[in-house]
Amino acid sequence: MAYQSRVSEAVIRRLPVYYRHLKELEQMGVERISSRELGEIMNYTASQIRQDINCFGGFGQQGYGYHVPSLRKHMANILGLERKYEAVIIGAGNIGRAVAGYKGFERDGVLIRAVFDKEPKLVGTKCNRFTVQAYDTLDEYLKSNHTDIGVIAVPAEAAQGVANRLVAGGVPAIWNFAPVDIQHPDTVVSTHVHLTDSLHILTYMMNEEALFNSIHAKMKAGNQE
Amino acid sequence: MAYQSRVSEAVIRRLPVYYRHLKELEQMGVERISSRELGEIMNYTASQIRQDINCFGGFGQQGYGYHVPSLRKHMANILGLERKYEAVIIGAGNIGRAVAGYKGFERDGVLIRAVFDKEPKLVGTKCNRFTVQAYDTLDEYLKSNHTDIGVIAVPAEAAQGVANRLVAGGVPAIWNFAPVDIQHPDTVVSTHVHLTDSLHILTYMMNEEALFNSIHAKMKAGNQE
Repeated sequence: MAYQSRVSEAVIRRLPVYYRHLKELEQMGVERISSRELGEIMNYTASQIRQDINCFGGFGQQGYGYHVPSLRKHMANILGLERKYEAVIIGAGNIGRAVAGYKGFERDGVLIRAVFDKEPKLVGTKCNRFTVQAYDTLDEYLKSNHTDIGVIAVPAEAAQGVANRLVAGGVPAIWNFAPVDIQHPDTVVSTHVHLTDSLHILTYMMNEEALFNSIHAKMKAGNQE
Repeated sequence: MAYQSRVSEAVIRRLPVYYRHLKELEQMGVERISSRELGEIMNYTASQIRQDINCFGGFGQQGYGYHVPSLRKHMANILGLERKYEAVIIGAGNIGRAVAGYKGFERDGVLIRAVFDKEPKLVGTKCNRFTVQAYDTLDEYLKSNHTDIGVIAVPAEAAQGVANRLVAGGVPAIWNFAPVDIQHPDTVVSTHVHLTDSLHILTYMMNEEALFNSIHAKMKAGNQE
């Protein structure tokens, strides 16, 4: 995020996690929860939970804790999930198809409106309920259709070009799945889905014990030298 | 992560980010970098960078900074990327296909060996260079093929069942793309790709200014009451 936020990046990263857990708690019928209990579920301390929520005007009552449905709604409001977003997907490959087909996004107010690809063989074919449109017609589409979010689902080498066209077309937000960082003006916001990051965290966890054994062995050897 | 790590979750989350940036710097031919410069690129403070790297036995030299290729290699070692992983994908839908087709995983040592699906129409068809195998044969496959990572790419309601079978088959690590938390013994590690998290961070950023204006307006109104 080049974007300069009013709250720390760490807090922002935790917001969707709060939202997920609160949604689950609400679905399970839990009415109220203390910051300590919420902290236990989320692996955070009670004071971190209170601090995070206080960034957004506070909530909850001393001795009562949080009312789960209200806090869930408050969090949805913070995350901007109480409005609608018009979105287009650029790239009708596997990732584009996965995004076009995932029903959860619509529940969050993100309405996919069109899918574009520059591959002539794909243009005119179906991508879920959408007919793939020619990438060449994107500029024209953006002129006549208000678009809030552009989803970049093209190979790395094509991503920056797509980002430039989305920005030129007035799209204010980019959701980037291409495995490369994109540049854009500060007036545009973007997030980047790095699938490999979670894979690397997994491989880290698989090897952590061996890693620390080797670090300790090296330190010990160093001390004896 | 239910997993109890030796370093904080925040540090672990940053490791793949270091790795990505160091790889880019190395590709650009940058030989050495100070913690301040690295911090500027990554939006962290110099002291945070030094602290993070010191968690793993330290590196770099006062007055010289870090030697980029060495630190990249050190980071690859920390992330467990200097060994090979045998992986299977359960689910030959869009996500399963995207994972099966992404060449970057192989460069990180993750070798996809087989793709399974329970849909009879998909069994025997091609998913990239793999022939989709029947999910019923997974147990048998795991008995005769060493497998390090199981990729769950099935709908939410099927995910726990798949996780149970992977665990029963001795698979020590799960990479979960299903939009639901899975339970597993502490001896198994897992990471969860929540695509909606990055979408929610995007919608948060799109609305942050309006959100804080409304919080301040409310506070002001409260003060005047």
